[in-house]
This record gives sequence, structure tokens and C-alpha cells, in this order.
Amino acid sequence: MTKPADLDRFRGKQVLITGGLGFLGSNLAIALVGLGARVTLLDAMLDDHGGNLFNVEPIKDRVTVNFSDVRDECSLKYLVRGKDYIFHFAGQNDHVLSLTNPFPDIDINIKGSAILLETCRRFNAGARLVYSGTRGEYGRAVMLPVREDQPMHPKGIYELSSLTAQQLFQIYNDNHGVPSVTLRLTNIYGERAQMKHSRFGVANWFIRLALDDGTIPVFGDGSLLRDFVYVQDALDAVLRCAATEAAYGQVFNVGNNRASSFRELAETVVRAAGSGRWEFAPFSPERAAQEPGDFCSDIRKIGRVVGWRPTTPLEDGVRKTACYYRRYKEHYW
Amino acid sequence: MTKPADLDRFRGKQVLITGGLGFLGSNLAIALVGLGARVTLLDAMLDDHGGNLFNVEPIKDRVTVNFSDVRDECSLKYLVRGKDYIFHFAGQNDHVLSLTNPFPDIDINIKGSAILLETCRRFNAGARLVYSGTRGEYGRAVMLPVREDQPMHPKGIYELSSLTAQQLFQIYNDNHGVPSVTLRLTNIYGERAQMKHSRFGVANWFIRLALDDGTIPVFGDGSLLRDFVYVQDALDAVLRCAATEAAYGQVFNVGNNRASSFRELAETVVRAAGSGRWEFAPFSPERAAQEPGDFCSDIRKIGRVVGWRPTTPLEDGVRKTACYYRRYKEHYW
Repeated sequence: MTKPADLDRFRGKQVLITGGLGFLGSNLAIALVGLGARVTLLDAMLDDHGGNLFNVEPIKDRVTVNFSDVRDECSLKYLVRGKDYIFHFAGQNDHVLSLTNPFPDIDINIKGSAILLETCRRFNAGARLVYSGTRGEYGRAVMLPVREDQPMHPKGIYELSSLTAQQLFQIYNDNHGVPSVTLRLTNIYGERAQMKHSRFGVANWFIRLALDDGTIPVFGDGSLLRDFVYVQDALDAVLRCAATEAAYGQVFNVGNNRASSFRELAETVVRAAGSGRWEFAPFSPERAAQEPGDFCSDIRKIGRVVGWRPTTPLEDGVRKTACYYRRYKEHYW
Repeated sequence: MTKPADLDRFRGKQVLITGGLGFLGSNLAIALVGLGARVTLLDAMLDDHGGNLFNVEPIKDRVTVNFSDVRDECSLKYLVRGKDYIFHFAGQNDHVLSLTNPFPDIDINIKGSAILLETCRRFNAGARLVYSGTRGEYGRAVMLPVREDQPMHPKGIYELSSLTAQQLFQIYNDNHGVPSVTLRLTNIYGERAQMKHSRFGVANWFIRLALDDGTIPVFGDGSLLRDFVYVQDALDAVLRCAATEAAYGQVFNVGNNRASSFRELAETVVRAAGSGRWEFAPFSPERAAQEPGDFCSDIRKIGRVVGWRPTTPLEDGVRKTACYYRRYKEHYW
């Protein structure tokens, strides 16, 4: 990640990251510590989510780790006080789970966001918040690339809960003076994501299969498009949004103007890992029902307002990711 | 309400109405009993909501009343079994409350709807559901009249919770085979609404003020437009939607192709009541912030698919309503 001048504003600032031991949270923490911020990480360490203490190994003596849940408003009251920036990454991200049980999404993603917002409103309305939602909020694309003002038709409970949380941030920004930027992240891949199961994070899962010298299943004819973004690029977007006054009260896509097919992803992963193989596989009925079709984000708005665009080619990002996990496999497998 | 042939399908059918002792629920129960249905009413009798046993006085020996909360999944499991139709009217409807406390909306409107849907999915997936949301889900109108496919920008937590619930019904219809029709009701007025406070149901509140020989405050210059619908017309829409196969999986506006100004409403109310008066009053800052501007529903879709349109002129509906409350004032004041 480059470190342009305007990111100097984080120096000496108090920052809270929810889901701080997870994929996005830990990578952001490392970046913010590098920028001179004083970082507190909140994580509930929910089973099968992304929390992993090894993720913050490089900065473990320079961050405060607070094990707690965003739904625990009594703890949160103390954690939000005095913070200049709060990045809200904690969430239930397993859309497969949401097909059989809607309640974790409602409790963690919707109610947890409301508890964070209400706590900020009451105890620290001046804190600047960033919420990271998902491109799944759109559902099937009406036209490609997908702009932020497209109609929202989330296809599942997980996607709906992310959208409702985004709208909660918007309402607290507009009505209650709790300033926030809300983001819709596309498929993010990279170091420090969980690698234990395939229920979210498909690009990372492909990398695991290749590193295990396994076979990557490419569903359908492999032509389905996604705009994959390397995690360091995504976090550059997150930081620039937080640092840009004009971004507050806005929603932005964080995606890639260059979409790739799943076949291209699989080929790239096998090449970067130097092991594994891929083959076509049929969609399961559940996946077929949830599959929103090709997706590619229109990222002109964030380019215009925040000056961000992704800079890491898929090949480079995948190679760096594979390299990380090959080295630290024992902490993730 | 007219009783066209296709509403005969409710004869002998098992029906559950949540919020069944409230405004919409009790009027619907009376209509359904008249159509020969076997009706169970679920109501949690929450303070300051619409539940009132007197509402079902005319049918008290022909309905089953079950006091419980939609959030109580153990009770609900028994209540949904064997039902042919379930009308979901239970909800937190006080958008003023939602400005200071978002949790009742999340718990009752979002989680309560999810509990009902999940219970139906597990114990009675064949039941046909109707959900009544609000035109507030749209937020400020981008263009008038407002069509169902307009972008959704709910301005407050109450409105957002109603939208999220509507999307939950849609997702359970599309993914889980729990069939539903979802509605966005505009300002409904009529008999059997609560009359104790002004936090929701503005047209009824005007009627109370006039019957009390009080002064109706008309905010701003009184030109703000709403499409008021008489409750019997609205319930005719609800029943026709439930009775129309092609309506399932769809969302419909239930509004009025003829909008009225608040000034016109106040004048009509004073005339119908034969008492009271009205005067201009300034918006409070809270109301001004929440006020979505003129609103008028486009009702062509429900006309096309279901064959419904409102038939009661404002003057007639207001007169009937005033007459009802004058007679039964002791049960509502």
C-alpha cells in the first residue's frame, strides 16, 4: 500500500476496529499502526469466523486487543469513547449459514450495527465510522458494471442483513449526526483470511486447494465474472474514504474495473501456487439458487470522490497471498 | 366492502392474523368472519400499540384470541400449524419512538418477521402469507406517483425495519418456498385504530381532535399531499391480494390515485365531525427532519394484477370513522 500525504491524518489518532482480528480488520490494523495510529481491536472470536490472533503477530505489542462482541453494549460503551475513527468489520459473513438460520445475521449484522451506532450516538457522536458491506447487497446485476444507485435486490438473508446495516449507518449519518462512510466490497482476497472452510472467501479457498496440491472446482463453464480485489488495495480504499471529508454520508463500491472469470482465477492460482489443478464442476442446487450471475462494480464514484482505484493485478495479488500462506500455513490450516 | 366471487375462497379456511386485535387486524378479522373463515388472532397487546379487545366485539364469539408475541417462536410454532392464510400486521409502528430507540423496530419488525417466516418454513411452508408494510419504505419520492420499483431510501429506523421485513418475505418466497404477497400501505384511516396518542395514524388523530371540539394543527402551509385510504378499502386490497395467485411473490402499493392535502383533510374532518377547528402550525425540527415531502402512490400495478382500486371518497370514509368513534368513544379515548 502506498502512503500518500493525506493518510498522515491517522498519526496519533485513536482507532477502534471491530472484527479486528479478522481478515480486513487485522490487515487494516497493520496499516494503521504503520501510519502511527493507536489501535484497539475488538473481536468476539466467533467459531468459524475470521478471528485469528496470529493475524496481528507483526504488531502484537503495538495494539490493544479487546475480546468482546459488538452486541455487548455495556463493553462497547467504554470502547467507543475517545475514538477518532471506528472501522466496523465485525459480522456474520457466511451466506450458506443464512440459508438455514437467519438469526445470526439479524442479531450480529443488523442489531450489532445498531448497537454500535446507538452507542456512538450516545457516547461519541463525533467519531468517524466506516462500514464495510458487500456487493451482494445488489443481488443480480440489472446492468454491468453495477453503480451505487442501482436497485437493491439482495438474494439472501446475509446479503439483506448487510444492506440493512448499511442503511442504518446512512440513517444515523443523516438524522443523528453520526458521520459514516459505507462501502460495498466485492470479492476481496489476500493474506490473513480464514482458510479452514469454503463458506466465504472463494479466491482464498482456491489458493488453499492449490497449495494443498488439490483440485479446484470451477462451477458451470467457468465464465462467470467477478471483480476480485487484493486486500491491500481494498484497505487503501477504506483508509482513503475515512480520510476524505467529502466521502462521509456516501456509499461507495470497492471493486475492480477489470473483471475476471472463475476459470481465469483458477488458472492464475494454480500458476502462482505452482501446485494443484482445476476442473469444471456442476453447481449444487443451493449455489445455483443463490448465484447472482456475473458481477462487476462500477468504481467511478470512489475514483471521483476519493481518488482510489485498485493497482494490484490479479496475478501479483494471488502470488503474494500464496506466498504468505505457504510460509504461515500452520496458523491457518 | 364488496364481496366479489373470488373472496369465497376464504370460506372454511383457517386464518391467523398477527396484530389481530389492532387496527388492520381487527377490521380484517370482521371481514373474514363475514366471509366464513375460521380466524385466530395473535396479539401481544403491547403498550401504546393498537391492540384493543373492544375492536372484535362484533365477532367475539366467532374468533379465537391468542395473546402472544410474534417473537415467541415456541408459541408461534403451534399457531402457524394448519393455517391456510397468515396476515402479518403485528409491528412496532411508532416512527417517533424509532428516532430515540432503534431496538423495538429491529426486534419486533425485523426479527419478529424472521421468526414468523422461519416458523412457517419449518412447520407450515404451504401457508399463504400477506405482509403489510408502509409507503415510508420509499422515503422521499423521486417522482410522483411512486411506483413499486422506485429506489428505496427509508428515512428512519421504523421505515427501514419495515423495508427489511418486506425483503425477508420476498427472500422466503423466492428461496424457501414460503409464498407471500407484500404490500406498502399509505396513510390508512378508519374505525378501530388507537386514538390515545398522535404518534401514528394522523388522519384518525385529526378526527379525535375534532370530536373533542379541539384545534387540529396543520403543519406548514397545509399543502403537503398524502393519499389517504379508508381502512375498508385497504382491507379489500389485502383480501384480493391474498386471493389472487398471480399476486404471490409481488410487492404492491395500496394507496389512492387521488391525493389530498393536509388542509383538505382537516377541513373534511371538521365538516364530518360537526365540531372542532383547524389552524396552521409550524413543523417541529424532528418532524421536519423526518418529513418525506408530498407522497402519492402509483396503484396501477395492484389494479392490473389484482383488480383493486379504492372506492370510498375521503368525505365518506371520514364521516363513517367519526360516526364510529362518537358512538364508541369510551373504548378508545
